[in-house]
Amino acid sequence: MCTSDHGNHPIAVDLADTATASVAPSPEIVEDLIAANHILFDQGVVDAFGHISVRHDGRPDRFLLARNMAPSRVAAEDIVEFTLDGEAVNAAGRKVYLERFIHAEIFRKRPDVMAVVHSHSHSIVPLSVVKGTRLKAMFHMAGFVGQGAPVFEIREAGGDATDLLISSNHLGRALAEHFDGHDIVLMRGHGSTVVGGSIKQAVYRAVYAELNARYQLQAMQLGEVTYLTEGESRACVASIEAQVHRPWEMWLEQARARRR
Amino acid sequence: MCTSDHGNHPIAVDLADTATASVAPSPEIVEDLIAANHILFDQGVVDAFGHISVRHDGRPDRFLLARNMAPSRVAAEDIVEFTLDGEAVNAAGRKVYLERFIHAEIFRKRPDVMAVVHSHSHSIVPLSVVKGTRLKAMFHMAGFVGQGAPVFEIREAGGDATDLLISSNHLGRALAEHFDGHDIVLMRGHGSTVVGGSIKQAVYRAVYAELNARYQLQAMQLGEVTYLTEGESRACVASIEAQVHRPWEMWLEQARARRR
Amino acid sequence: MCTSDHGNHPIAVDLADTATASVAPSPEIVEDLIAANHILFDQGVVDAFGHISVRHDGRPDRFLLARNMAPSRVAAEDIVEFTLDGEAVNAAGRKVYLERFIHAEIFRKRPDVMAVVHSHSHSIVPLSVVKGTRLKAMFHMAGFVGQGAPVFEIREAGGDATDLLISSNHLGRALAEHFDGHDIVLMRGHGSTVVGGSIKQAVYRAVYAELNARYQLQAMQLGEVTYLTEGESRACVASIEAQVHRPWEMWLEQARARRR
Amino acid sequence: MCTSDHGNHPIAVDLADTATASVAPSPEIVEDLIAANHILFDQGVVDAFGHISVRHDGRPDRFLLARNMAPSRVAAEDIVEFTLDGEAVNAAGRKVYLERFIHAEIFRKRPDVMAVVHSHSHSIVPLSVVKGTRLKAMFHMAGFVGQGAPVFEIREAGGDATDLLISSNHLGRALAEHFDGHDIVLMRGHGSTVVGGSIKQAVYRAVYAELNARYQLQAMQLGEVTYLTEGESRACVASIEAQVHRPWEMWLEQARARRR
Repeated sequence: MCTSDHGNHPIAVDLADTATASVAPSPEIVEDLIAANHILFDQGVVDAFGHISVRHDGRPDRFLLARNMAPSRVAAEDIVEFTLDGEAVNAAGRKVYLERFIHAEIFRKRPDVMAVVHSHSHSIVPLSVVKGTRLKAMFHMAGFVGQGAPVFEIREAGGDATDLLISSNHLGRALAEHFDGHDIVLMRGHGSTVVGGSIKQAVYRAVYAELNARYQLQAMQLGEVTYLTEGESRACVASIEAQVHRPWEMWLEQARARRR
Repeated sequence: MCTSDHGNHPIAVDLADTATASVAPSPEIVEDLIAANHILFDQGVVDAFGHISVRHDGRPDRFLLARNMAPSRVAAEDIVEFTLDGEAVNAAGRKVYLERFIHAEIFRKRPDVMAVVHSHSHSIVPLSVVKGTRLKAMFHMAGFVGQGAPVFEIREAGGDATDLLISSNHLGRALAEHFDGHDIVLMRGHGSTVVGGSIKQAVYRAVYAELNARYQLQAMQLGEVTYLTEGESRACVASIEAQVHRPWEMWLEQARARRR
Repeated sequence: MCTSDHGNHPIAVDLADTATASVAPSPEIVEDLIAANHILFDQGVVDAFGHISVRHDGRPDRFLLARNMAPSRVAAEDIVEFTLDGEAVNAAGRKVYLERFIHAEIFRKRPDVMAVVHSHSHSIVPLSVVKGTRLKAMFHMAGFVGQGAPVFEIREAGGDATDLLISSNHLGRALAEHFDGHDIVLMRGHGSTVVGGSIKQAVYRAVYAELNARYQLQAMQLGEVTYLTEGESRACVASIEAQVHRPWEMWLEQARARRR
Repeated sequence: MCTSDHGNHPIAVDLADTATASVAPSPEIVEDLIAANHILFDQGVVDAFGHISVRHDGRPDRFLLARNMAPSRVAAEDIVEFTLDGEAVNAAGRKVYLERFIHAEIFRKRPDVMAVVHSHSHSIVPLSVVKGTRLKAMFHMAGFVGQGAPVFEIREAGGDATDLLISSNHLGRALAEHFDGHDIVLMRGHGSTVVGGSIKQAVYRAVYAELNARYQLQAMQLGEVTYLTEGESRACVASIEAQVHRPWEMWLEQARARRR
């Protein structure tokens, strides 16, 4: 067991810009990223904590993430560009999230991933701490959960006295390794991280992962559960996730109405 | 076990109109159908997914269903007419729900049914996956649930690698067969479908089926449960469902206030 | 076992006025009764069903109750006066609640009772159907629940094929007998009825009975529970229920804001 | 066992002012205290009951607390100053909370404490009554809960027929003793009290103590739980509670929007 990464960190970080921006992201993904922050709050996936990132659509070795703040309040001027080392490109004095390494290391490991949501939603946290239990796909909307989401135990990479936060490239890499063949990873005593091929898909998955966890908590108390087969999981992802625009449009409309 | 119906389907479907409309439905049922879409969302029965249909009041071999969209946003121009084969009459290029076969085959099998609600409400899903457990009427508002709602296991008709969706006449018929003597059927890992003699009754039942499931989940954790007798279930349906206009009017008022 | 009271009843009743009003109730209790209807809805105690009554402050052998309608919509013109036989005094063609006998027979049996709430709140219903389980006071706000609320089993007075509704003086009396030494009675598969010395106290008790049930459901799943002693229950009622105006004023303000 | 403190008390108290105010608190802490009252209501920690106090920033032997009222309605003119004996300084006829002794005795015992929240939040109450169960830190946001929050059993100091309220200096001291090495104490059948080094920190802790309890209730039903180690708890407090301004600012914005 390694103990090099524990200790206390300020989770809002002053970070000097160490790279330069060369090309602007498209206005569309910035707009979607802002909306996603609001939607994740409205849908109860994040509270004042949690974050969503998107890979830069002009530079696949960069990603965009809000500055350190509550997602529900994010606006265009709060978006910061980062390198895959988690270095800020244009923070310009704005404090950034300590846990940007979650996003950096997943984008590095998984070129197919375009968006990453990290959250502590209400039913995910309890499932993450019960020994021998794994989140498994139990309804058609959550086929992406698959046959058992890995649980990241930070003690293996960071020792048993960390603040549980992914506060370094080392810890980010240890987490990212769990995404080999999985699109969601639970983090013991902390929450989960979920990835998608677009902002809309990642947001969809974060919402329905929480519902799958909620339903699983209830069903497990009553008896043996019939989970989706591997074939069912795959078929559900293929057909239902082609529809992620349907909830997105509804959530977007709600998010706008609430902020009017 | 048959495997002919699994595989992945786009769940929003482009469908050429293959029949022609001959008579317009009454404005009243169209208005009620729109309101029902909003109410089911407001009451938490559907989210961006789920749908409600009504039998055409001028042509019992036709039914009305929204185009593929979130129920909370349905308006008059979104209503499409279908045949009992699930063929669109006047889609005119609008995408339709893949699962229209649920409605088509139930309307075909059950001439007494005037409205069908398909949803994935929060307490129904967990009950649908616990082996050996059935939804049973446990309070007077849900007598229609009866002595044990059947659970539709799609693997029997579609094999073990489907997307769980009712994506064909074949699967629709397999589901509809479970409505022999039952007004609600759970669908394993998916949700439920409930029928009524009117839009108001079907909406009422969808709301109270969810409550019955919620209460049953809680009661089963504490000990042995006293369910309604068959006589009690029948008496409850007869007297309480004569009152479905009472919640309907309240829900309608709320739905209108929220959309003002 | 008597079977004379089962069978199906219309639960909205056309009732000819068989007595005459002699004195008007004070405007204050009418105003409080209307507010109580709204508050019980806002606080989740009633949905479109459930009702609250108050004893007529000019004639103790009469009581006031809304006409058959959703409590959230009650206004001054909806209040009807009844005799302790459940006969309408001034319905004047307005449909009345089938279950007015709950109120009539409790007001007859308990001269100290000034207000009665009948509801089907979310945690009360599951507790009412678990064999061998009773609602017991487990926190200081619900001392009035006491050492175990009786459960009314309608099968004893009405047979095993009723609609569970208190649809006659006979059933009302059978229920009222359970209020001997108790201020709340659960009704199996139906809900509860709670009484108070004022509208404010009855509303307070209906809200906190639901919370006690909710907490009890959760605690019983974890292990043995320490309930209030009889002495604690009594002391809590004496000191805390002297404060029922505090939540009332807050709820009233909320109810008015929502209806503005 | 002492029985001198039980019996019934009016929980809204008329209290003659017995000391004089010498220096005004800063407008900032008064403003924060008002906001904290609103936020605790909005976030579901308090209903019409519960209270928050702050130590006077000009006189550490005094503290500020609202007069007896629902927290959601507190305004500047409702703030009263008290001595560490729980005597009112400037009530000027306004009724005060019976339970001011909670605050007085904790401020006396713990000079490091600047704010105290007493509440009956929904998941804390059930955990407080299950024999052999203690609230333990199970996720990173609630490190302050530590390795097992003490449960205050009022029967030890007040006998078995109290109203469970902290209605005297004697009971306040008995409660305050449990804060030796702990920042949260559960109160059997009543709720909890949590302390912080600032209003923002105490509010943060009250919100996340409730979430920890909620998650713990769910996790304990499924199997053995991995709680935070002592080292993890400490590290979480150090890094995450440096961020309490982030949720505070969001909650404040919500509180203001709701009261506009």
